[in-house]
Amino acid sequence: MEELRSLSPARKAKLTPAEAREYFRAGQVLPTAGISAGYAQANLMIVPQELAFDFLLFAQRNPKSCPILGVLEAGEVTSELLAGGDIHTDVPLYFVYENGMKVAETTSLHEYWRDDLVTFIVGCSFTFESALMDEGIRVAHIDQDVNVPMYKTNRRSSSAGSLSGPMVVSMRPIPASQVADAVRITSRYPAVHGAPVHIGNPEELGIQDLSRPDFGDAVQIPEGSIPVFWACGVTPQAAVMESRPALAIGHAPGHMLITDARDSRYQVP
Amino acid sequence: MEELRSLSPARKAKLTPAEAREYFRAGQVLPTAGISAGYAQANLMIVPQELAFDFLLFAQRNPKSCPILGVLEAGEVTSELLAGGDIHTDVPLYFVYENGMKVAETTSLHEYWRDDLVTFIVGCSFTFESALMDEGIRVAHIDQDVNVPMYKTNRRSSSAGSLSGPMVVSMRPIPASQVADAVRITSRYPAVHGAPVHIGNPEELGIQDLSRPDFGDAVQIPEGSIPVFWACGVTPQAAVMESRPALAIGHAPGHMLITDARDSRYQVP
Repeated sequence: MEELRSLSPARKAKLTPAEAREYFRAGQVLPTAGISAGYAQANLMIVPQELAFDFLLFAQRNPKSCPILGVLEAGEVTSELLAGGDIHTDVPLYFVYENGMKVAETTSLHEYWRDDLVTFIVGCSFTFESALMDEGIRVAHIDQDVNVPMYKTNRRSSSAGSLSGPMVVSMRPIPASQVADAVRITSRYPAVHGAPVHIGNPEELGIQDLSRPDFGDAVQIPEGSIPVFWACGVTPQAAVMESRPALAIGHAPGHMLITDARDSRYQVP
Repeated sequence: MEELRSLSPARKAKLTPAEAREYFRAGQVLPTAGISAGYAQANLMIVPQELAFDFLLFAQRNPKSCPILGVLEAGEVTSELLAGGDIHTDVPLYFVYENGMKVAETTSLHEYWRDDLVTFIVGCSFTFESALMDEGIRVAHIDQDVNVPMYKTNRRSSSAGSLSGPMVVSMRPIPASQVADAVRITSRYPAVHGAPVHIGNPEELGIQDLSRPDFGDAVQIPEGSIPVFWACGVTPQAAVMESRPALAIGHAPGHMLITDARDSRYQVP
């Protein structure tokens, strides 16, 4: 099998989701931006059955940060979102948390898999980034070839059972003349975080320094652009870090599950 | 306390939700249509904690029939949707199911209450009926002063864990010239069943005789009107009847929880 990272951007974009997942199943590690263009990528949260109700309720109460695209019940390892795939091998890099501490980064969950694990597939803003670019809005972190910057905020997620934590946001600088368009476009994708939660004034979210994100990479903010903040699918991992359940498994930011669902499936109306 | 049924329609419409819930807490039984105009009414499903994940997942997978407006976690009896209220007394009439069989109709759950019960508050189409009437679309069952007709269909709900069952629909006959408007208007209320699931041709849903609904009352279909079908909040009770969990509690159709949320809260965009 050739190296995924050695493929040209055009080849990576043309991989089917099943082909891309094969590379990751074989243990290759690469951020997924730009791979299998047009297909929805997703955040991941895997928890034991005993925590599953709390997590699903957390998602129901925080739909902007945790939009659920699919759930694999205990004992299931695949679904129509990853036909023929296997949820415990097909994500490039997993983060394993025990009692809120990250104890492993791993390319396969074989060592951690249990029959009582329930998998939540959570929408990702990559889907609306394509729509933004299609309408002529530049996405700074893609232009600058880095991961999107993400920040823990002073806003609390709505808690559910044993789970509570801060809302995490992603930030994209948008030219002032296009901010309204960015709101309009992303509001049509409620299943992948939807409209922004905050526009301008990062201090109000408790973000002191945009150049020091909590996850991902800093981006340079072009002159005349306004920082625009969207609810982020890393929010569940922030809740895990704070709430310290015995076991929870997420993905490495930017290293997403590539699903068989086309981005267009999540556009409304 | 006076008799709720003796109040004039105008008085009933003007009751605050808290005032209306007081009548029901005192044991009075009356269908809730027309009471506390402008406030959202809701379906109810109460299940033990051990069934709560299955039910919330069922709702997540069947968002048109089971839109969740709120969840009271185990041990909670009130929420901001019924401020100062008590979920085990404030609905006019409860149906108690054991092993899928209705074993009681009761005005209070004191006898059945357990600390491990979780309450799901599910959106109800009463909310969009006001919007239809505001735009000049007559609602036949309101004109005819009966409960909306509801039918079990040959469509299956998406199953979740131990829960499966048929989709239940409500039917409103709409003049052919206004069907498109009815779609447009109700699609703006996704939290209360949203757009229709089927228009015309009841046979395709397995409905042989519109004059014999499975729940509620038959309505006369005006000449030139088309039967339009919406997903219905009685769907969870149909799943309970089929899946036979040890205990589940719903409401009597038409005898809803009157919430403090204004109908307008559920309109998008």
